[in-house]
Amino acid sequence: MRAAVMRHSQLVVDTIPDPTPLEGEVVVKTLACGICGSDLHALKHADKMVEAARESGAPFTLDVTRDVVMGHEFCAEVVAFGPNSSAAVKTGDRVVSMPLIFRNGAMHGVGYSNDVPGGYGEYMVLSTGLVLPVPNGLSTQHAALTEPMAVGVHAVAKARLDTYDAPLVIGCGPVGLAVIAALKLRGCAPIVAADFSPMRRALAERMGAHVVVDPAQRRAIETFSEATSMRPAVIFECVGVPGLLRQIMGEAPPQARVVVVGVCMDDDVIRPMVGINKELAVQFVLGYTPDEFAQTLQAIAEGQIDVAPLITGRVGLDAVPAAFETLGKPDAHAKILVEPWG
Amino acid sequence: MRAAVMRHSQLVVDTIPDPTPLEGEVVVKTLACGICGSDLHALKHADKMVEAARESGAPFTLDVTRDVVMGHEFCAEVVAFGPNSSAAVKTGDRVVSMPLIFRNGAMHGVGYSNDVPGGYGEYMVLSTGLVLPVPNGLSTQHAALTEPMAVGVHAVAKARLDTYDAPLVIGCGPVGLAVIAALKLRGCAPIVAADFSPMRRALAERMGAHVVVDPAQRRAIETFSEATSMRPAVIFECVGVPGLLRQIMGEAPPQARVVVVGVCMDDDVIRPMVGINKELAVQFVLGYTPDEFAQTLQAIAEGQIDVAPLITGRVGLDAVPAAFETLGKPDAHAKILVEPWG
Repeated sequence: MRAAVMRHSQLVVDTIPDPTPLEGEVVVKTLACGICGSDLHALKHADKMVEAARESGAPFTLDVTRDVVMGHEFCAEVVAFGPNSSAAVKTGDRVVSMPLIFRNGAMHGVGYSNDVPGGYGEYMVLSTGLVLPVPNGLSTQHAALTEPMAVGVHAVAKARLDTYDAPLVIGCGPVGLAVIAALKLRGCAPIVAADFSPMRRALAERMGAHVVVDPAQRRAIETFSEATSMRPAVIFECVGVPGLLRQIMGEAPPQARVVVVGVCMDDDVIRPMVGINKELAVQFVLGYTPDEFAQTLQAIAEGQIDVAPLITGRVGLDAVPAAFETLGKPDAHAKILVEPWG
Repeated sequence: MRAAVMRHSQLVVDTIPDPTPLEGEVVVKTLACGICGSDLHALKHADKMVEAARESGAPFTLDVTRDVVMGHEFCAEVVAFGPNSSAAVKTGDRVVSMPLIFRNGAMHGVGYSNDVPGGYGEYMVLSTGLVLPVPNGLSTQHAALTEPMAVGVHAVAKARLDTYDAPLVIGCGPVGLAVIAALKLRGCAPIVAADFSPMRRALAERMGAHVVVDPAQRRAIETFSEATSMRPAVIFECVGVPGLLRQIMGEAPPQARVVVVGVCMDDDVIRPMVGINKELAVQFVLGYTPDEFAQTLQAIAEGQIDVAPLITGRVGLDAVPAAFETLGKPDAHAKILVEPWG
């Protein structure tokens, strides 16, 4: 099959073997797969990801010297079943899945594995137990947004918002926009969001932000305080660059909670005394539960989360390397979908 | 009056003016005042404290170039009242107080102020609204431990322990021992505690730890896991040195919560990816509420917290500089009380 392959920190479009399903797996044609910021990171810093995973004791066995087909935000069509395998879906059905597969005694992240390809290729294998049928009427492109939107749903769930908590979203890339959508889904108001990019601030408003702020013009926390009065602050860090956590802790009001959703690959410096003096809480979050993933698909299908504004580009496999370049510029795009058969 | 004065990062015993009470204040004779680790830090790094407080937006106006009489863990005797002042206590009563005083339009930390002296002097002024009478039968020395024990009560309250949460206390200096006492007060079991010092581990057991571990022999988290099986981990960081938070985050099990009680004055490096991969939560805590302070006094008076093992030394004012030196060695002491009239 054809695929955009990560090979020695470069993306190359190549022909590679089709994946072979084992028992408990389905073969799917990849219809659409979003490009995630983590993939941009991974292309340049896969070694750091592996090192941090090891330090965390995570069962993450990626060999960065071997080929990887990334892509973990997909909608696909069932084309075949592995030996002795059945599922609640049939050939021709469109499905989404959490990007995990358990095979040969190990958990693999679909899109971060040497053994199974992710969504930047024509075919994938998925676990029969994890595939969810896409409801009729939901477009393939929108269904592919289930995974990144689930990240927001999970982050907001982990924040355990109390009645009077008021959210501030720092960074309106795909992660921040997913958090905004999940806050809106919960009926939070006002939702205050900050980003340097006018295009991203406009998207934030379309996804549900009530107040947006350009940090180049004014400190986000000032706009937040004005909009929310004395309500307790829950600040979602959705950028993931070194130094930002320290800055947020420095500007946060006393007793604030910070939810770290942005993935900072590097070591980071904080000033504990500031956290102590203000009694801040920092909750790191990752991924989503199976329930949250299914609920997110349902919310998109029912129009409770409108993902249409997020899709700013659609490309074929040949254009994947160029799309990665383009996504480095924050004002050009939100989500680009790869359509291997498009 | 005589006092041990912090003057240009040195402790000198000198004669200074008696404090003069304003309206709403009482004059007290300091009977006993514990030496706190924060005071050891402050003597060397007062500038860092002030800088971090400013970065936190705290109303902390200490001028490190001027004299400060430290000491904020005290029991004292009421000797006079300010103009137009009354209180629920009378002359001759023994009292404790949260070490705060509001005067001339600003909040001062008793023991960290240029304007009012702390407990390393013969007299202090306190706010009438904050003094609490020491119950009959409770010794002056034990009452003086109210403040450091309240730190533990508050840290455990902020941890919001669920039924199955299991605590691990890292560091068994006065802060860790206070946390252990507060965990015991709540009926937590098992309480696992780690310290390199055999003397401190023995104290931890006397304060209520069920299992102690020497990190030089074995990683604390291994002993913890063995003692608590798969129960959720709540790890109390009670040391406050750079690097320890990173180490704890690296060793913590997934979904663990870390409560930072130890005061790290320096910048500190963490690896956010480790926090993210494990979905850790970090709660910074400081001080206590007025309710917690009063409850702590009550718990000590009723014998629910036995502070006797903590008092390992009693000195007069002349010996305060030497006591500060001695407390730098972890195996020599837990709490030294200064008794200006002793």
